[in-house]
Amino acid sequence: MTTQPDWIAVDWGTSQLRLWQMAGDGTVLDRAESPEGMGRLTPSQFEPVLLRLLGDLPRRDTPLPVIICGMAGARQGWAEAPYVRTPCAPPGLAQALRVPGTDPRLAVHILPGVAQDSPADVMRGEETQVAGFLALNPRFDGVICLPGTHSKWVHVSAGEIVSFRSYMTGEIFALLSGQSVLRHGLAEGWDEAAFAAGVDQAMARPSGFAGDLFTLRAEGLLHGLDGAAARARLSGLLIGMELAAAKPYWLGQNVALLGASGLVAHYRTALEAQGLPVLIADADRMTLEGLKSARTPKEA
Amino acid sequence: MTTQPDWIAVDWGTSQLRLWQMAGDGTVLDRAESPEGMGRLTPSQFEPVLLRLLGDLPRRDTPLPVIICGMAGARQGWAEAPYVRTPCAPPGLAQALRVPGTDPRLAVHILPGVAQDSPADVMRGEETQVAGFLALNPRFDGVICLPGTHSKWVHVSAGEIVSFRSYMTGEIFALLSGQSVLRHGLAEGWDEAAFAAGVDQAMARPSGFAGDLFTLRAEGLLHGLDGAAARARLSGLLIGMELAAAKPYWLGQNVALLGASGLVAHYRTALEAQGLPVLIADADRMTLEGLKSARTPKEA
Repeated sequence: MTTQPDWIAVDWGTSQLRLWQMAGDGTVLDRAESPEGMGRLTPSQFEPVLLRLLGDLPRRDTPLPVIICGMAGARQGWAEAPYVRTPCAPPGLAQALRVPGTDPRLAVHILPGVAQDSPADVMRGEETQVAGFLALNPRFDGVICLPGTHSKWVHVSAGEIVSFRSYMTGEIFALLSGQSVLRHGLAEGWDEAAFAAGVDQAMARPSGFAGDLFTLRAEGLLHGLDGAAARARLSGLLIGMELAAAKPYWLGQNVALLGASGLVAHYRTALEAQGLPVLIADADRMTLEGLKSARTPKEA
Repeated sequence: MTTQPDWIAVDWGTSQLRLWQMAGDGTVLDRAESPEGMGRLTPSQFEPVLLRLLGDLPRRDTPLPVIICGMAGARQGWAEAPYVRTPCAPPGLAQALRVPGTDPRLAVHILPGVAQDSPADVMRGEETQVAGFLALNPRFDGVICLPGTHSKWVHVSAGEIVSFRSYMTGEIFALLSGQSVLRHGLAEGWDEAAFAAGVDQAMARPSGFAGDLFTLRAEGLLHGLDGAAARARLSGLLIGMELAAAKPYWLGQNVALLGASGLVAHYRTALEAQGLPVLIADADRMTLEGLKSARTPKEA
Protein backbone atom coordinates (compact mmCIF):
# COMPACT_ATOMS: atom_id res chain seq x y z
CA MET A 1 0.00 0.00 0.00
CA THR A 2 1.40 3.42 -1.01
CA THR A 3 1.76 6.23 1.48
CA GLN A 4 -1.07 8.77 1.26
CA PRO A 5 -0.02 12.38 0.67
CA ASP A 6 -0.55 15.05 3.30
CA TRP A 7 -1.00 17.72 0.68
CA ILE A 8 -0.69 18.40 -3.05
CA ALA A 9 1.47 21.08 -4.68
CA VAL A 10 0.54 22.22 -8.21
CA ASP A 11 2.17 24.63 -10.65
CA TRP A 12 -0.63 25.23 -13.17
CA GLY A 13 0.63 27.39 -16.03
CA THR A 14 -0.76 28.40 -19.41
CA SER A 15 0.70 25.50 -21.38
CA GLN A 16 1.31 22.77 -18.81
CA LEU A 17 0.82 21.72 -15.23
CA ARG A 18 3.10 19.93 -12.81
CA LEU A 19 1.86 18.23 -9.67
CA TRP A 20 3.67 16.88 -6.63
CA GLN A 21 2.16 14.57 -3.96
CA MET A 22 3.76 15.69 -0.73
CA ALA A 23 4.39 14.22 2.72
CA GLY A 24 4.03 16.54 5.69
CA ASP A 25 7.81 16.71 6.13
CA GLY A 26 8.32 18.07 2.60
CA THR A 27 9.24 14.75 0.97
CA VAL A 28 7.94 14.27 -2.56
CA LEU A 29 5.94 11.01 -2.71
CA ASP A 30 4.98 11.18 -6.35
CA ARG A 31 4.90 13.62 -9.25
CA ALA A 32 2.93 14.07 -12.46
CA GLU A 33 2.95 16.37 -15.50
CA SER A 34 0.34 17.16 -18.08
CA PRO A 35 0.00 19.41 -21.14
CA GLU A 36 -3.48 20.40 -19.89
CA GLY A 37 -2.47 23.97 -19.11
CA MET A 38 -4.90 26.79 -18.37
CA GLY A 39 -4.90 27.80 -22.04
CA ARG A 40 -6.69 24.56 -23.01
CA LEU A 41 -9.24 24.33 -20.22
CA THR A 42 -12.60 25.89 -19.40
CA PRO A 43 -13.24 26.49 -15.67
CA SER A 44 -15.22 23.27 -15.20
CA GLN A 45 -12.43 21.14 -16.69
CA PHE A 46 -9.79 21.89 -14.04
CA GLU A 47 -11.14 19.66 -11.27
CA PRO A 48 -11.53 16.52 -13.44
CA VAL A 49 -7.92 16.93 -14.62
CA LEU A 50 -6.75 17.25 -11.02
CA LEU A 51 -8.72 14.20 -9.86
CA ARG A 52 -7.44 12.10 -12.75
CA LEU A 53 -3.83 13.00 -11.95
CA LEU A 54 -4.39 12.13 -8.28
CA GLY A 55 -5.58 8.63 -9.20
CA ASP A 56 -7.52 6.65 -6.60
CA LEU A 57 -8.23 9.18 -3.92
CA PRO A 58 -9.51 7.43 -0.79
CA ARG A 59 -12.36 8.70 1.38
CA ARG A 60 -10.92 11.09 4.00
CA ASP A 61 -11.97 12.57 7.32
CA THR A 62 -10.50 15.97 6.45
CA PRO A 63 -10.17 17.28 2.89
CA LEU A 64 -6.75 16.96 1.21
CA PRO A 65 -5.14 20.42 0.85
CA VAL A 66 -4.19 21.33 -2.71
CA ILE A 67 -2.06 24.47 -3.21
CA ILE A 68 -1.88 25.83 -6.75
CA CYS A 69 0.17 28.64 -8.20
CA GLY A 70 0.14 30.09 -11.71
CA MET A 71 -2.36 30.92 -14.41
CA ALA A 72 -5.09 28.66 -12.98
CA GLY A 73 -5.83 31.75 -10.86
CA ALA A 74 -6.24 34.11 -13.83
CA ARG A 75 -9.59 35.51 -14.90
CA GLN A 76 -9.77 32.88 -17.68
CA GLY A 77 -8.53 30.13 -15.35
CA TRP A 78 -10.23 27.85 -12.80
CA ALA A 79 -11.22 30.68 -10.45
CA GLU A 80 -9.84 34.20 -10.22
CA ALA A 81 -7.44 34.75 -7.31
CA PRO A 82 -7.15 38.56 -7.14
CA TYR A 83 -3.65 40.01 -7.25
CA VAL A 84 -1.84 41.31 -4.18
CA ARG A 85 -0.10 44.63 -4.75
CA THR A 86 3.55 45.57 -4.48
CA PRO A 87 5.33 46.12 -2.19
CA CYS A 88 4.41 42.78 -0.60
CA ALA A 89 5.85 39.49 0.53
CA PRO A 90 5.19 36.65 -1.95
CA PRO A 91 1.61 35.63 -1.07
CA GLY A 92 0.95 32.52 1.07
CA LEU A 93 -1.99 30.37 2.01
CA ALA A 94 -3.59 33.16 4.05
CA GLN A 95 -4.10 35.23 0.86
CA ALA A 96 -5.08 32.27 -1.34
CA LEU A 97 -8.50 31.78 -2.89
CA ARG A 98 -10.34 28.72 -1.56
CA VAL A 99 -12.11 27.34 -4.63
CA PRO A 100 -15.76 26.70 -3.66
CA GLY A 101 -17.83 23.67 -4.55
CA THR A 102 -15.10 21.12 -5.16
CA ASP A 103 -15.16 17.41 -4.40
CA PRO A 104 -15.43 17.15 -0.58
CA ARG A 105 -12.20 15.16 -0.44
CA LEU A 106 -10.30 18.23 -1.69
CA ALA A 107 -9.59 21.71 -0.27
CA VAL A 108 -8.28 23.63 -3.27
CA HIS A 109 -6.36 26.87 -2.68
CA ILE A 110 -5.11 29.06 -5.53
CA LEU A 111 -2.32 31.50 -4.72
CA PRO A 112 -2.75 35.08 -5.97
CA GLY A 113 -0.43 36.69 -8.48
CA VAL A 114 1.28 40.00 -7.76
CA ALA A 115 0.37 43.29 -9.44
CA GLN A 116 2.10 46.65 -9.58
CA ASP A 117 0.11 49.81 -10.22
CA SER A 118 2.73 51.96 -11.88
CA PRO A 119 4.27 51.05 -14.20
CA ALA A 120 1.39 48.60 -14.59
CA ASP A 121 2.65 45.06 -14.37
CA VAL A 122 1.49 41.59 -13.35
CA MET A 123 2.90 38.16 -12.57
CA ARG A 124 1.29 34.79 -11.83
CA GLY A 125 3.57 31.95 -10.88
CA GLU A 126 6.89 33.81 -10.75
CA GLU A 127 6.05 35.14 -7.25
CA THR A 128 6.07 31.52 -6.06
CA GLN A 129 9.52 30.93 -7.55
CA VAL A 130 10.67 34.09 -5.79
CA ALA A 131 9.18 32.73 -2.56
CA GLY A 132 11.11 29.49 -3.04
CA PHE A 133 14.34 31.32 -3.67
CA LEU A 134 13.81 33.46 -0.56
CA ALA A 135 13.00 30.37 1.51
CA LEU A 136 16.41 28.96 0.59
CA ASN A 137 18.22 32.34 0.67
CA PRO A 138 16.36 34.24 3.41
CA ARG A 139 18.84 37.12 3.59
CA PHE A 140 18.99 37.75 -0.17
CA ASP A 141 18.69 41.42 -1.08
CA GLY A 142 18.91 42.26 -4.77
CA VAL A 143 17.33 41.41 -8.06
CA ILE A 144 15.89 38.14 -9.29
CA CYS A 145 15.65 37.73 -13.04
CA LEU A 146 13.26 35.08 -14.40
CA PRO A 147 13.85 34.79 -18.17
CA GLY A 148 11.04 33.35 -20.26
CA THR A 149 8.09 34.12 -22.51
CA HIS A 150 7.51 37.26 -20.45
CA SER A 151 10.80 37.76 -18.57
CA LYS A 152 10.56 39.31 -15.10
CA TRP A 153 13.07 41.41 -13.19
CA VAL A 154 12.08 41.49 -9.53
CA HIS A 155 13.63 43.77 -6.93
CA VAL A 156 13.59 41.98 -3.57
CA SER A 157 14.45 43.49 -0.22
CA ALA A 158 13.78 42.38 3.37
CA GLY A 159 11.74 39.43 2.12
CA GLU A 160 9.40 41.59 0.02
CA ILE A 161 8.84 42.13 -3.68
CA VAL A 162 9.54 45.87 -3.88
CA SER A 163 8.95 46.36 -7.60
CA PHE A 164 9.23 44.47 -10.88
CA ARG A 165 9.15 44.80 -14.66
CA SER A 166 8.18 42.33 -17.40
CA TYR A 167 9.62 42.13 -20.92
CA MET A 168 8.03 40.26 -23.81
CA THR A 169 11.43 39.01 -24.97
CA GLY A 170 10.64 35.28 -25.22
CA GLU A 171 7.33 35.78 -26.99
CA ILE A 172 8.85 38.21 -29.51
CA PHE A 173 11.66 35.71 -30.19
CA ALA A 174 9.15 32.93 -30.80
CA LEU A 175 7.06 35.06 -33.18
CA LEU A 176 10.02 36.41 -35.14
CA SER A 177 11.89 33.12 -35.40
CA GLY A 178 8.79 31.04 -36.17
CA GLN A 179 6.54 33.27 -38.21
CA SER A 180 8.27 36.33 -39.64
CA VAL A 181 10.28 36.62 -42.87
CA LEU A 182 13.36 35.91 -40.72
CA ARG A 183 12.38 32.25 -40.37
CA HIS A 184 13.74 31.60 -43.89
CA GLY A 185 17.25 32.48 -42.74
CA LEU A 186 17.38 30.73 -39.34
CA ALA A 187 18.52 27.25 -38.43
CA GLU A 188 18.91 25.24 -35.24
CA GLY A 189 22.24 25.43 -33.47
CA TRP A 190 24.04 28.20 -31.67
CA ASP A 191 26.94 30.59 -32.24
CA GLU A 192 28.28 32.16 -29.06
CA ALA A 193 30.13 34.97 -30.87
CA ALA A 194 27.05 35.92 -32.89
CA PHE A 195 24.97 35.97 -29.71
CA ALA A 196 27.48 38.24 -27.96
CA ALA A 197 27.59 40.53 -31.01
CA GLY A 198 23.78 40.81 -30.96
CA VAL A 199 23.75 41.65 -27.25
CA ASP A 200 26.42 44.34 -27.72
CA GLN A 201 24.68 45.83 -30.73
CA ALA A 202 21.29 46.10 -29.02
CA MET A 203 22.73 47.44 -25.76
CA ALA A 204 24.74 50.08 -27.61
CA ARG A 205 21.87 51.17 -29.84
CA PRO A 206 18.53 49.65 -28.82
CA SER A 207 16.52 51.88 -31.17
CA GLY A 208 18.10 50.07 -34.10
CA PHE A 209 16.16 46.90 -33.31
CA ALA A 210 13.63 46.84 -36.19
CA GLY A 211 16.42 47.69 -38.65
CA ASP A 212 18.92 45.22 -37.18
CA LEU A 213 16.32 42.50 -37.68
CA PHE A 214 15.99 43.21 -41.39
CA THR A 215 19.78 43.30 -41.68
CA LEU A 216 19.78 39.66 -40.50
CA ARG A 217 17.52 38.79 -43.42
CA ALA A 218 19.55 40.80 -45.92
CA GLU A 219 22.88 39.36 -44.72
CA GLY A 220 21.42 35.91 -45.35
CA LEU A 221 20.38 36.86 -48.88
CA LEU A 222 23.50 38.82 -49.86
CA HIS A 223 26.34 37.40 -47.80
CA GLY A 224 25.18 33.88 -46.94
CA LEU A 225 24.90 34.46 -43.18
CA ASP A 226 24.78 31.08 -41.44
CA GLY A 227 21.36 30.12 -40.04
CA ALA A 228 22.60 29.19 -36.57
CA ALA A 229 24.56 32.45 -36.33
CA ALA A 230 21.49 34.39 -37.44
CA ARG A 231 19.36 32.69 -34.78
CA ALA A 232 21.91 33.37 -32.04
CA ARG A 233 22.24 37.01 -33.12
CA LEU A 234 18.45 37.42 -33.09
CA SER A 235 18.41 36.05 -29.54
CA GLY A 236 21.27 38.39 -28.63
CA LEU A 237 19.49 41.43 -30.05
CA LEU A 238 16.38 40.67 -27.99
CA ILE A 239 18.21 39.87 -24.76
CA GLY A 240 20.47 42.90 -25.28
CA MET A 241 17.46 45.17 -25.65
CA GLU A 242 15.99 43.68 -22.45
CA LEU A 243 19.26 44.22 -20.56
CA ALA A 244 19.45 47.82 -21.80
CA ALA A 245 15.93 48.47 -20.52
CA ALA A 246 16.42 46.62 -17.24
CA LYS A 247 19.75 48.29 -16.48
CA PRO A 248 18.33 50.29 -13.54
CA TYR A 249 17.42 46.91 -12.04
CA TRP A 250 20.73 45.10 -12.36
CA LEU A 251 23.41 47.76 -12.33
CA GLY A 252 25.51 47.31 -9.19
CA GLN A 253 23.09 44.73 -7.75
CA ASN A 254 23.20 41.14 -6.59
CA VAL A 255 21.51 39.27 -9.43
CA ALA A 256 20.04 35.78 -9.27
CA LEU A 257 18.83 34.02 -12.40
CA LEU A 258 15.92 31.57 -12.11
CA GLY A 259 14.82 29.65 -15.15
CA ALA A 260 15.32 26.81 -17.58
CA SER A 261 18.98 25.92 -17.98
CA GLY A 262 19.54 26.84 -21.66
CA LEU A 263 17.96 30.26 -21.45
CA VAL A 264 19.59 31.03 -18.10
CA ALA A 265 22.99 30.23 -19.62
CA HIS A 266 22.43 32.86 -22.34
CA TYR A 267 21.40 35.51 -19.81
CA ARG A 268 24.38 34.63 -17.67
CA THR A 269 26.74 35.05 -20.63
CA ALA A 270 25.21 38.42 -21.44
CA LEU A 271 25.29 39.68 -17.84
CA GLU A 272 28.81 38.43 -17.15
CA ALA A 273 29.94 40.31 -20.28
CA GLN A 274 28.73 43.40 -18.41
CA GLY A 275 31.03 42.47 -15.52
CA LEU A 276 28.15 41.27 -13.39
CA PRO A 277 28.52 37.97 -11.51
CA VAL A 278 25.24 36.10 -11.19
CA LEU A 279 23.80 33.42 -8.96
CA ILE A 280 21.93 30.61 -10.75
CA ALA A 281 18.99 28.67 -9.36
CA ASP A 282 16.81 25.99 -10.89
CA ALA A 283 13.31 27.28 -11.58
CA ASP A 284 11.50 23.98 -11.11
CA ARG A 285 13.01 23.43 -7.72
CA MET A 286 12.20 27.02 -6.69
CA THR A 287 8.55 26.51 -7.66
CA LEU A 288 8.21 23.51 -5.36
CA GLU A 289 10.09 25.28 -2.56
CA GLY A 290 7.77 28.25 -3.02
CA LEU A 291 4.64 26.11 -2.78
CA LYS A 292 6.08 24.49 0.37
CA SER A 293 6.81 27.90 1.80
CA ALA A 294 3.30 29.17 0.94
CA ARG A 295 1.88 26.34 3.07
CA THR A 296 3.86 27.44 6.13
CA PRO A 297 2.58 30.49 8.02
CA LYS A 298 5.27 33.18 8.06
CA GLU A 299 6.61 34.44 11.35
CA ALA A 300 5.89 38.08 12.03
CA MET B 1 -13.30 46.32 -80.97
CA THR B 2 -11.11 47.31 -78.03
CA THR B 3 -7.79 49.05 -78.51
CA GLN B 4 -4.83 46.69 -78.21
CA PRO B 5 -2.21 47.63 -75.62
CA ASP B 6 1.30 48.64 -76.64
CA TRP B 7 2.80 47.23 -73.47
CA ILE B 8 1.86 45.79 -70.09
CA ALA B 9 2.93 47.12 -66.68
CA VAL B 10 2.86 44.72 -63.70
CA ASP B 11 3.54 45.18 -60.00
CA TRP B 12 3.93 41.57 -58.82
CA GLY B 13 4.33 41.52 -55.04
CA THR B 14 4.34 38.77 -52.42
CA SER B 15 0.63 38.85 -51.68
CA GLN B 16 -0.95 40.37 -54.78
CA LEU B 17 -0.36 41.56 -58.30
CA ARG B 18 -1.65 44.56 -60.19
CA LEU B 19 -1.56 44.82 -63.96
CA TRP B 20 -2.14 47.74 -66.32
CA GLN B 21 -2.69 47.50 -70.09
CA MET B 22 -0.94 50.54 -71.49
CA ALA B 23 -1.10 52.59 -74.70
CA GLY B 24 2.18 53.91 -76.07
CA ASP B 25 1.37 57.42 -74.88
CA GLY B 26 1.06 56.31 -71.25
CA THR B 27 -2.74 56.05 -71.19
CA VAL B 28 -4.13 53.19 -69.10
CA LEU B 29 -6.45 51.11 -71.31
CA ASP B 30 -7.42 48.54 -68.72
CA ARG B 31 -6.36 47.30 -65.31
CA ALA B 32 -6.61 44.08 -63.29
CA GLU B 33 -5.77 42.86 -59.81
CA SER B 34 -5.31 39.39 -58.37
CA PRO B 35 -4.41 37.82 -55.02
CA GLU B 36 -2.05 35.47 -56.88
CA GLY B 37 1.09 37.04 -55.42
CA MET B 38 4.56 35.51 -55.59
CA GLY B 39 4.01 33.84 -52.21
CA ARG B 40 1.36 31.54 -53.68
CA LEU B 41 2.98 30.61 -56.96
CA THR B 42 5.64 28.21 -58.18
CA PRO B 43 7.80 29.47 -61.08
CA SER B 44 5.73 27.68 -63.74
CA GLN B 45 2.48 29.25 -62.51
CA PHE B 46 3.37 32.88 -63.24
CA GLU B 47 2.88 32.83 -67.01
CA PRO B 48 -0.59 31.19 -66.94
CA VAL B 49 -1.74 33.82 -64.42
CA LEU B 50 -0.42 36.58 -66.65
CA LEU B 51 -2.07 35.15 -69.79
CA ARG B 52 -5.39 34.72 -68.02
CA LEU B 53 -5.37 38.33 -66.82
CA LEU B 54 -4.55 39.53 -70.35
CA GLY B 55 -7.62 37.75 -71.76
CA ASP B 56 -7.77 37.11 -75.50
CA LEU B 57 -4.32 37.99 -76.66
CA PRO B 58 -4.29 38.20 -80.50
CA ARG B 59 -1.50 36.89 -82.72
CA ARG B 60 1.16 39.60 -83.05
CA ASP B 61 4.03 40.40 -85.38
CA THR B 62 6.24 41.53 -82.51
CA PRO B 63 5.94 40.24 -78.95
CA LEU B 64 4.01 42.41 -76.46
CA PRO B 65 6.43 43.92 -73.92
CA VAL B 66 5.58 43.13 -70.30
CA ILE B 67 7.51 45.02 -67.60
CA ILE B 68 7.29 43.61 -64.09
CA CYS B 69 8.58 44.96 -60.81
CA GLY B 70 8.51 43.38 -57.35
CA MET B 71 8.94 39.97 -55.78
CA ALA B 72 8.32 38.08 -59.05
CA GLY B 73 12.05 38.70 -59.53
CA ALA B 74 13.09 37.13 -56.22
CA ARG B 75 14.90 33.81 -55.98
CA GLN B 76 11.59 32.10 -55.11
CA GLY B 77 9.69 34.05 -57.81
CA TRP B 78 9.19 33.60 -61.55
CA ALA B 79 12.87 34.10 -62.43
CA GLU B 80 15.62 35.72 -60.41
CA ALA B 81 16.51 39.23 -61.52
CA PRO B 82 19.82 39.89 -59.74
CA TYR B 83 20.02 43.04 -57.60
CA VAL B 84 21.79 46.19 -58.73
CA ARG B 85 23.98 47.73 -56.02
CA THR B 86 23.83 51.14 -54.39
CA PRO B 87 24.66 53.82 -55.26
CA CYS B 88 22.61 53.49 -58.45
CA ALA B 89 19.74 55.01 -60.36
CA PRO B 90 16.51 53.00 -60.03
CA PRO B 91 17.02 50.20 -62.57
CA GLY B 92 15.30 50.39 -65.96
CA LEU B 93 14.64 48.06 -68.88
CA ALA B 94 18.35 47.87 -69.77
CA GLN B 95 19.08 46.10 -66.46
CA ALA B 96 15.93 43.93 -66.52
CA LEU B 97 15.92 40.16 -66.84
CA ARG B 98 14.32 38.93 -70.06
CA VAL B 99 12.44 35.79 -68.97
CA PRO B 100 13.34 33.00 -71.43
CA GLY B 101 10.93 30.52 -72.98
CA THR B 102 7.66 32.40 -72.65
CA ASP B 103 4.72 32.39 -75.06
CA PRO B 104 6.06 33.97 -78.31
CA ARG B 105 3.39 36.69 -78.11
CA LEU B 106 5.06 38.02 -74.92
CA ALA B 107 8.42 39.61 -74.13
CA VAL B 108 8.58 39.49 -70.32
CA HIS B 109 11.09 41.72 -68.51
CA ILE B 110 11.54 41.64 -64.76
CA LEU B 111 13.17 44.67 -63.17
CA PRO B 112 15.93 44.01 -60.62
CA GLY B 113 15.69 44.98 -56.99
CA VAL B 114 18.34 47.11 -55.32
CA ALA B 115 20.85 45.79 -52.78
CA GLN B 116 23.23 47.53 -50.41
CA ASP B 117 26.34 45.75 -49.16
CA SER B 118 26.81 47.43 -45.80
CA PRO B 119 24.68 47.61 -43.81
CA ALA B 120 23.25 44.70 -45.79
CA ASP B 121 19.84 45.60 -47.15
CA VAL B 122 17.54 44.76 -50.07
CA MET B 123 14.42 46.07 -51.78
CA ARG B 124 12.24 44.72 -54.60
CA GLY B 125 9.45 46.93 -55.83
CA GLU B 126 10.14 50.06 -53.76
CA GLU B 127 12.91 51.09 -56.22
CA THR B 128 10.19 51.38 -58.87
CA GLN B 129 8.07 53.64 -56.64
CA VAL B 130 11.17 55.74 -56.09
CA ALA B 131 11.68 55.87 -59.87
CA GLY B 132 8.09 57.04 -60.31
CA PHE B 133 8.49 59.73 -57.68
CA LEU B 134 11.71 60.93 -59.32
CA ALA B 135 10.04 60.94 -62.75
CA LEU B 136 7.45 63.37 -61.38
CA ASN B 137 9.90 65.29 -59.15
CA PRO B 138 13.17 65.13 -61.11
CA ARG B 139 15.00 67.63 -58.94
CA PHE B 140 14.09 66.01 -55.60
CA ASP B 141 17.04 65.65 -53.26
CA GLY B 142 16.30 64.17 -49.85
CA VAL B 143 14.73 61.12 -48.26
CA ILE B 144 11.84 58.99 -49.41
CA CYS B 145 10.10 56.95 -46.72
CA LEU B 146 7.98 53.99 -47.82
CA PRO B 147 6.10 52.70 -44.75
CA GLY B 148 4.87 49.12 -44.86
CA THR B 149 5.56 45.53 -43.85
CA HIS B 150 9.27 46.29 -44.20
CA SER B 151 9.45 50.10 -44.19
CA LYS B 152 12.20 51.66 -46.28
CA TRP B 153 14.04 54.96 -45.84
CA VAL B 154 15.81 55.83 -49.08
CA HIS B 155 18.34 58.63 -49.45
CA VAL B 156 18.07 60.03 -52.97
CA SER B 157 20.43 62.52 -54.55
CA ALA B 158 21.04 63.56 -58.20
CA GLY B 159 18.57 60.92 -59.40
CA GLU B 160 20.33 58.06 -57.61
CA ILE B 161 19.57 55.86 -54.64
CA VAL B 162 22.55 56.69 -52.43
CA SER B 163 21.72 54.43 -49.48
CA PHE B 164 18.72 52.96 -47.68
CA ARG B 165 17.58 51.11 -44.56
CA SER B 166 14.67 48.75 -43.94
CA TYR B 167 12.71 48.32 -40.70
CA MET B 168 10.43 45.38 -39.91
CA THR B 169 7.90 47.71 -38.28
CA GLY B 170 4.78 46.58 -40.16
CA GLU B 171 5.51 42.88 -39.79
CA ILE B 172 6.21 43.22 -36.06
CA PHE B 173 2.93 45.14 -35.62
CA ALA B 174 1.01 42.41 -37.45
CA LEU B 175 2.58 39.62 -35.34
CA LEU B 176 2.13 41.40 -32.01
CA SER B 177 -1.41 42.61 -32.66
CA GLY B 178 -2.61 39.38 -34.24
CA GLN B 179 -0.78 36.62 -32.42
CA SER B 180 0.85 37.72 -29.17
CA VAL B 181 -0.74 37.96 -25.71
CA LEU B 182 -1.43 41.62 -26.56
CA ARG B 183 -4.22 40.62 -28.96
CA HIS B 184 -6.54 40.07 -25.97
CA GLY B 185 -6.37 43.77 -25.11
CA LEU B 186 -6.63 45.33 -28.58
CA ALA B 187 -9.67 46.48 -30.53
CA GLU B 188 -10.31 48.16 -33.86
CA GLY B 189 -10.44 51.92 -33.88
CA TRP B 190 -7.87 54.61 -33.30
CA ASP B 191 -6.84 57.08 -30.61
CA GLU B 192 -4.65 59.89 -31.86
CA ALA B 193 -3.43 60.90 -28.39
CA ALA B 194 -2.46 57.33 -27.51
CA PHE B 195 -0.59 57.03 -30.80
CA ALA B 196 1.33 60.25 -30.15
CA ALA B 197 2.14 59.09 -26.60
CA GLY B 198 3.52 55.81 -27.96
CA VAL B 199 5.70 57.62 -30.50
CA ASP B 200 7.08 59.96 -27.83
CA GLN B 201 7.73 57.13 -25.40
CA ALA B 202 9.64 55.01 -27.92
CA MET B 203 11.63 57.94 -29.30
CA ALA B 204 12.64 59.04 -25.82
CA ARG B 205 13.57 55.56 -24.63
CA PRO B 206 13.63 52.99 -27.44
CA SER B 207 15.28 50.33 -25.28
CA GLY B 208 12.08 50.15 -23.23
CA PHE B 209 10.20 48.55 -26.12
CA ALA B 210 9.77 44.97 -24.84
CA GLY B 211 8.75 46.29 -21.42
CA ASP B 212 6.42 48.97 -22.79
CA LEU B 213 4.62 46.22 -24.69
CA PHE B 214 3.92 44.24 -21.54
CA THR B 215 2.76 47.41 -19.82
CA LEU B 216 0.03 47.67 -22.49
CA ARG B 217 -1.18 44.22 -21.46
CA ALA B 218 -0.99 44.97 -17.74
CA GLU B 219 -2.78 48.33 -18.10
CA GLY B 220 -5.59 46.46 -19.81
CA LEU B 221 -5.81 43.95 -16.96
CA LEU B 222 -5.38 46.38 -14.07
CA HIS B 223 -6.68 49.74 -15.28
CA GLY B 224 -9.08 48.82 -18.09
CA LEU B 225 -7.04 50.42 -20.87
CA ASP B 226 -9.31 50.85 -23.90
CA GLY B 227 -8.60 48.44 -26.79
CA ALA B 228 -8.45 51.10 -29.50
CA ALA B 229 -6.08 53.20 -27.40
CA ALA B 230 -3.90 50.16 -26.77
CA ARG B 231 -3.74 49.42 -30.50
CA ALA B 232 -2.85 53.02 -31.37
CA ARG B 233 -0.18 53.11 -28.65
CA LEU B 234 1.31 49.84 -29.93
CA SER B 235 1.50 51.37 -33.41
CA GLY B 236 3.04 54.51 -31.93
CA LEU B 237 5.68 52.54 -30.02
CA LEU B 238 6.73 50.74 -33.20
CA ILE B 239 6.73 53.80 -35.44
CA GLY B 240 8.51 55.79 -32.73
CA MET B 241 11.24 53.19 -32.51
CA GLU B 242 11.61 53.30 -36.30
CA LEU B 243 11.84 57.10 -36.28
CA ALA B 244 14.46 56.99 -33.52
CA ALA B 245 16.55 54.57 -35.57
CA ALA B 246 16.05 56.41 -38.87
CA LYS B 247 16.82 59.85 -37.40
CA PRO B 248 20.12 60.16 -39.31
CA TYR B 249 18.01 59.77 -42.45
CA TRP B 250 15.31 62.36 -41.79
CA LEU B 251 16.86 64.98 -39.53
CA GLY B 252 17.07 68.26 -41.41
CA GLN B 253 16.07 66.60 -44.71
CA ASN B 254 13.33 66.91 -47.31
CA VAL B 255 11.12 63.95 -46.59
CA ALA B 256 8.55 62.44 -48.96
CA LEU B 257 6.18 59.72 -47.78
CA LEU B 258 5.00 57.11 -50.29
CA GLY B 259 2.50 54.55 -49.20
CA ALA B 260 -1.09 53.60 -48.47
CA SER B 261 -3.11 56.53 -47.16
CA GLY B 262 -3.87 55.32 -43.61
CA LEU B 263 -0.33 54.34 -42.73
CA VAL B 264 1.16 57.43 -44.39
CA ALA B 265 -1.14 59.60 -42.28
CA HIS B 266 0.28 58.05 -39.08
CA TYR B 267 3.88 58.57 -40.21
CA ARG B 268 3.03 62.13 -41.20
CA THR B 269 1.58 62.82 -37.75
CA ALA B 270 4.67 61.39 -36.09
CA LEU B 271 7.14 63.29 -38.29
CA GLU B 272 5.26 66.58 -38.08
CA ALA B 273 5.35 66.25 -34.29
CA GLN B 274 9.14 66.35 -34.73
CA GLY B 275 8.77 69.64 -36.59
CA LEU B 276 9.39 68.03 -39.96
CA PRO B 277 7.11 68.97 -42.87
CA VAL B 278 6.57 66.08 -45.28
CA LEU B 279 5.49 65.67 -48.87
CA ILE B 280 2.91 62.94 -49.50
CA ALA B 281 2.61 60.86 -52.67
CA ASP B 282 0.31 57.99 -53.56
CA ALA B 283 2.22 54.71 -53.74
CA ASP B 284 0.04 53.06 -56.38
CA ARG B 285 0.44 55.96 -58.75
CA MET B 286 4.20 56.04 -58.15
CA THR B 287 4.46 52.34 -59.04
CA LEU B 288 2.81 52.88 -62.41
CA GLU B 289 4.87 56.01 -63.07
CA GLY B 290 7.98 54.02 -62.16
CA LEU B 291 7.14 51.23 -64.59
CA LYS B 292 6.49 53.85 -67.31
CA SER B 293 9.82 55.47 -66.52
CA ALA B 294 11.63 52.09 -66.57
CA ARG B 295 10.40 51.63 -70.17
CA THR B 296 11.93 54.92 -71.30
CA PRO B 297 15.71 54.95 -71.82
CA LYS B 298 17.33 57.56 -69.53
CA GLU B 299 19.26 60.41 -71.02
CA ALA B 300 22.92 60.47 -70.15
